[in-house]
Amino acid sequence: MNAPLPTHLIPGLRPLPAAALQALRQHFGDRCSTAASVREQHGRGESVYDAQPPEAVVFCESNDDVVFVVKLANEHAVPVIPFGVGSSLEGHLLAVQGGVSVDLSRMTKILSVNAEDLTVTVQAGVTREQLNREIKDTGLFFPIDPGANASLGGMAATRASGTNAVRYGTMRENVLGLTVVTAAGEVVQTGTRAKKSSAGYDLTRLFVGSEGTLGVMTEVTLKLFPLPEAVSAAVCHFPSIDAAVQTTIQIIQMGVPIARCELLDANAIRAVNAHSKLALREAPMLLMEFHGSEASVKEQAETVQELAREQGGEDFQWAATPEERSRLWAARHQSYFAALQTRPGCRCQSSDTCVPISRLAESINQSVEEAEASGIPYWIVGHVGDGNFHLSYLMDPDDTAEVEAVERLNVQMVQRALRLGGTCTGEHGIGLHKMGYLAEEAGPGAVEMMRGIKRALDPKNIMNPGKVFAM
Amino acid sequence: MNAPLPTHLIPGLRPLPAAALQALRQHFGDRCSTAASVREQHGRGESVYDAQPPEAVVFCESNDDVVFVVKLANEHAVPVIPFGVGSSLEGHLLAVQGGVSVDLSRMTKILSVNAEDLTVTVQAGVTREQLNREIKDTGLFFPIDPGANASLGGMAATRASGTNAVRYGTMRENVLGLTVVTAAGEVVQTGTRAKKSSAGYDLTRLFVGSEGTLGVMTEVTLKLFPLPEAVSAAVCHFPSIDAAVQTTIQIIQMGVPIARCELLDANAIRAVNAHSKLALREAPMLLMEFHGSEASVKEQAETVQELAREQGGEDFQWAATPEERSRLWAARHQSYFAALQTRPGCRCQSSDTCVPISRLAESINQSVEEAEASGIPYWIVGHVGDGNFHLSYLMDPDDTAEVEAVERLNVQMVQRALRLGGTCTGEHGIGLHKMGYLAEEAGPGAVEMMRGIKRALDPKNIMNPGKVFAM
Repeated sequence: MNAPLPTHLIPGLRPLPAAALQALRQHFGDRCSTAASVREQHGRGESVYDAQPPEAVVFCESNDDVVFVVKLANEHAVPVIPFGVGSSLEGHLLAVQGGVSVDLSRMTKILSVNAEDLTVTVQAGVTREQLNREIKDTGLFFPIDPGANASLGGMAATRASGTNAVRYGTMRENVLGLTVVTAAGEVVQTGTRAKKSSAGYDLTRLFVGSEGTLGVMTEVTLKLFPLPEAVSAAVCHFPSIDAAVQTTIQIIQMGVPIARCELLDANAIRAVNAHSKLALREAPMLLMEFHGSEASVKEQAETVQELAREQGGEDFQWAATPEERSRLWAARHQSYFAALQTRPGCRCQSSDTCVPISRLAESINQSVEEAEASGIPYWIVGHVGDGNFHLSYLMDPDDTAEVEAVERLNVQMVQRALRLGGTCTGEHGIGLHKMGYLAEEAGPGAVEMMRGIKRALDPKNIMNPGKVFAM
Repeated sequence: MNAPLPTHLIPGLRPLPAAALQALRQHFGDRCSTAASVREQHGRGESVYDAQPPEAVVFCESNDDVVFVVKLANEHAVPVIPFGVGSSLEGHLLAVQGGVSVDLSRMTKILSVNAEDLTVTVQAGVTREQLNREIKDTGLFFPIDPGANASLGGMAATRASGTNAVRYGTMRENVLGLTVVTAAGEVVQTGTRAKKSSAGYDLTRLFVGSEGTLGVMTEVTLKLFPLPEAVSAAVCHFPSIDAAVQTTIQIIQMGVPIARCELLDANAIRAVNAHSKLALREAPMLLMEFHGSEASVKEQAETVQELAREQGGEDFQWAATPEERSRLWAARHQSYFAALQTRPGCRCQSSDTCVPISRLAESINQSVEEAEASGIPYWIVGHVGDGNFHLSYLMDPDDTAEVEAVERLNVQMVQRALRLGGTCTGEHGIGLHKMGYLAEEAGPGAVEMMRGIKRALDPKNIMNPGKVFAM
């Protein structure tokens, strides 16, 4: 058993008429699949929910493909669910009203690299790793790194961020423009390649974070950054989570331009050590990275080491080589899978609250207390420089009491974050799981505005229906 | 005579019923004015257009005041035009359909300073200078500086930026949340104080830049930044505008975190020298500022000086004291009024295109050629680090041929910017003047989306109607 869908989230199916399926088959040939395994894979993602498969999956290779399927879906008022690589965490991909999964993972063209403008335009299926591989020779990179090798369209859809956001911002700050296929099947450009603009409503920022509910993003124009002259990574162990968090708060308040500032608790390190054959001390730790000129990196590291010492932090252990640095970050990125392996058969429910930096200690410490009291296995990683952390429970999906306990603990974490001036989700999005949290956070007036916008842009409610808020 | 309004921009007046005016008088007392001078002052701003006065002006002091006037306007389907300090440039404030000007300039409370979180919440009528004065003791500052001492609500409404945006971003990046009075008179919060969030549609970014057409922003939560340890300003003269621009392009492409990088042409310097009693050499010049640690500022300045020399730039002249630095920036900020004084009776029509940085030289050089060929007096300042510059014509408003010639020249500049991948407005907004440009830039599909959003949030079209796009 998995976390059951709250009943208000199970609206009626909207069946795909045989003629529409026939039209899809005709257009897409063997790129249209109704095989159970393919549908199952496209109907879940990494959420705790059981799959709710779409009726069909189409593998798009062009804007025209997307236009074709969206126009057809619009005609028959059938749901369309955009799919990148399936790494979303909150149930975004479940076909709760049936419909067609629009797989964009074959749209992997880098459309134009404008190195001299620090911009790139890619198809939505390009992953962040592919992008950075393909632009390696330009001396530029795309920093946003949510851990998973997600597609850039998917990252835009959930307003993703991750380890580098503390310095480089999130998808909100780093998407300059989009090509969108609207619910009516029109192709619309938002934004330009200019760094700033005051030209009308910010449609780009409206689509970023809209979780597929307003249209299908097929092309994304992104900011790039010069590879820093110097990069150094270090780990620093602390006597307590609180000490690590207090250090982080001071780093941010002093304005140190740290590039990455990740917290791992002892549980996370234990999992990572086992999974990635590392020998990190199993105590609360910050994994940090500094970017800049040689002098600036040295200066930043000295400041941070000093702040850490005041909190009982040990001496930095430096990643001496780029390979060692990569190994550390790979281990960090695999922490999710590493943790899953510590409890066979479990499912992972990650919190994602984000609070103003001064409230981070309160936010984390009380959550840890509750987690300890619960007796349910958990682990913590956090983009703590942004006030964002993930306390993840490893729950037995067949133990109803445990599943319910985890949801109660999640609710407590969210309510605490809201009391502290924060948000229920820093980077994972609302999906299915957090619809109740969004209503509590944003309030009825703001949610009604979102509904109005959704109605205006998607009058038949075909774009990933049943997600973010109830219509 | 002034630039005539294109006929499609002159929709019918929507008169304020006597009973509604009576209700305003009852609620606002002497804070409701129908005096010709007050109405005239509220019906123009700094645009080239003649004033189109609202029927009444109310001076709001609270959210409740705003709710009162908006509910009344909604009931009678009468326009509401939010007013900050009246520094907008594109005709945003003209009451083209009549209605009530909602003056927010008395809403000047700093509601909460959260220094430890680097955030502040202010009423919309607080100006950027007031804000920085009032938070001086916190060691923090709000960097966005459009030149004018604009209200923060007004700056949010036009998605303003200015001299510091090259390093600190625009209002798009620096507004965390808003309190908005909707067209129905409901008070809605958007955003939280968390640095990032993936919770639903980005209503904050939708309102930022909406130019008063979606609701009245009454409170703004902003990011603050630690005052840099070291600040240095320098000027550098170049043999040509192109040489200054080429230097700028390289500064940006190398990723130098320059805080300000302003171009002034010889015409601008001539005006500024006369107005501010300076003796700057009347040749193309970059006015730069570097923020950071002592070491970092030194490093940045050395890099930039080297780049400048390669383009024939002279040695930096440093502003030796904070007072000298302030004097330079004050002169830069007064360049608009300084230029107006060089041609008595003239009006100033500023372009505001913004292009990808690699196309900036082409964008400026061709505009200068056209300006020289026109024989009409002009001057240039530019936030060139962002690819944004203002070529401003000083035109005789009584000379129809000249007014028309300036508009033609503006159209050419905009069309060039669009060809180069840029935008018709980097920071001034659309208002009345650029509605045609927006249609050309965004295309019918995107404008139709904006219309849909406007209809959804303001079904009676009472919020600053007749601006940004035709309904």
